[in-house]
Amino acid sequence: MTPVDFYFDFASPYGFIAAMQMERLDRPVRWHPFLLGAVYKAVGQSPLDHRFKRDYVITVDAPRMARQIGLQLKVPAGFPEHALPASRLFYWIDERDSVGAVRFATSVYRKYWLHGCATSDVTAAVDVAASIGYDRSMIVAAMNAQATKDRLVAANEDAIRQGVFGSPFFVVDGEPFWGSDRMALIIGRASDATGKRG
Amino acid sequence: MTPVDFYFDFASPYGFIAAMQMERLDRPVRWHPFLLGAVYKAVGQSPLDHRFKRDYVITVDAPRMARQIGLQLKVPAGFPEHALPASRLFYWIDERDSVGAVRFATSVYRKYWLHGCATSDVTAAVDVAASIGYDRSMIVAAMNAQATKDRLVAANEDAIRQGVFGSPFFVVDGEPFWGSDRMALIIGRASDATGKRG
Repeated sequence: MTPVDFYFDFASPYGFIAAMQMERLDRPVRWHPFLLGAVYKAVGQSPLDHRFKRDYVITVDAPRMARQIGLQLKVPAGFPEHALPASRLFYWIDERDSVGAVRFATSVYRKYWLHGCATSDVTAAVDVAASIGYDRSMIVAAMNAQATKDRLVAANEDAIRQGVFGSPFFVVDGEPFWGSDRMALIIGRASDATGKRG
Repeated sequence: MTPVDFYFDFASPYGFIAAMQMERLDRPVRWHPFLLGAVYKAVGQSPLDHRFKRDYVITVDAPRMARQIGLQLKVPAGFPEHALPASRLFYWIDERDSVGAVRFATSVYRKYWLHGCATSDVTAAVDVAASIGYDRSMIVAAMNAQATKDRLVAANEDAIRQGVFGSPFFVVDGEPFWGSDRMALIIGRASDATGKRG
């Protein structure tokens, strides 16, 4: 069974809502954090540029979608900001322990979107990595290493190459899906493929 | 029971997908066609500007969502173009016969998105209005009348005032919903309000 590729930005509310439901996909998932800002820049698109849309997403729709799965959204302090620390740390952890990396991703996501920690805050990301067993001074050194920075740049480039233009974004057997609200379709598709609907 | 306000552009695939399911809302609906281009201009937002997103919407996601309700989407010739003729005619008919206006809207929508007629084509819109009983020469005269043009301009301004920034857009008891994929939430809300869930 081919895995689902899951692209997301830690600063994206719908990315968070998707991440909290990944077990629903009932398929192996490859997690790919990336920086939406880098993608927007590359494809010449603007972020939630207008107040109307941003207000709608942040004050109405994302909290409403979170409530649908029993979660109370809290917007990260300073939103919208980049999520460089967690994005870099994810790939550093992933090279050592892919299960730990997913645990890190879900924990840090909850810290941002349930507890309102700033996504750009280094300490918040380091705390979560430390809580899953990594040495604090090692993490800080890793986050500032050129190899770690390069790994995230490569991830952003890969997302762009895959046609990703938003967060969350899924690729399932070559078929793209944009938005947490498309997960039901992915589940349908995965079930079809495994014959569970038959 | 307060009506649902339904804002849509005839050139919008998701507007079409929503229009084909309005009876699911089980509430009175006020139909408000408007020109997305006018709204984008007013709020300083760009349309489906990047190829990635436009390709995804037109070749992947909108056809997929249409198939979910048993429809085979055909993109209008010349897409994306304005839908001035149908938008103007809708309001002219609506002033005379609100039920006929909705019949006109659903028929002309099918012509664009199931048969691929150009949304800017005057004849296509006139044909549909004629098919529901209006005199052809009267329709053409009406479409070119300043009062008809002004009516659509007023509708665009009203949409902007309501905070509409995309199509389809719904306002239900003051709560905004953007996208055909939010209709399930509106149905849930309407049922709550009428106590059907109780």
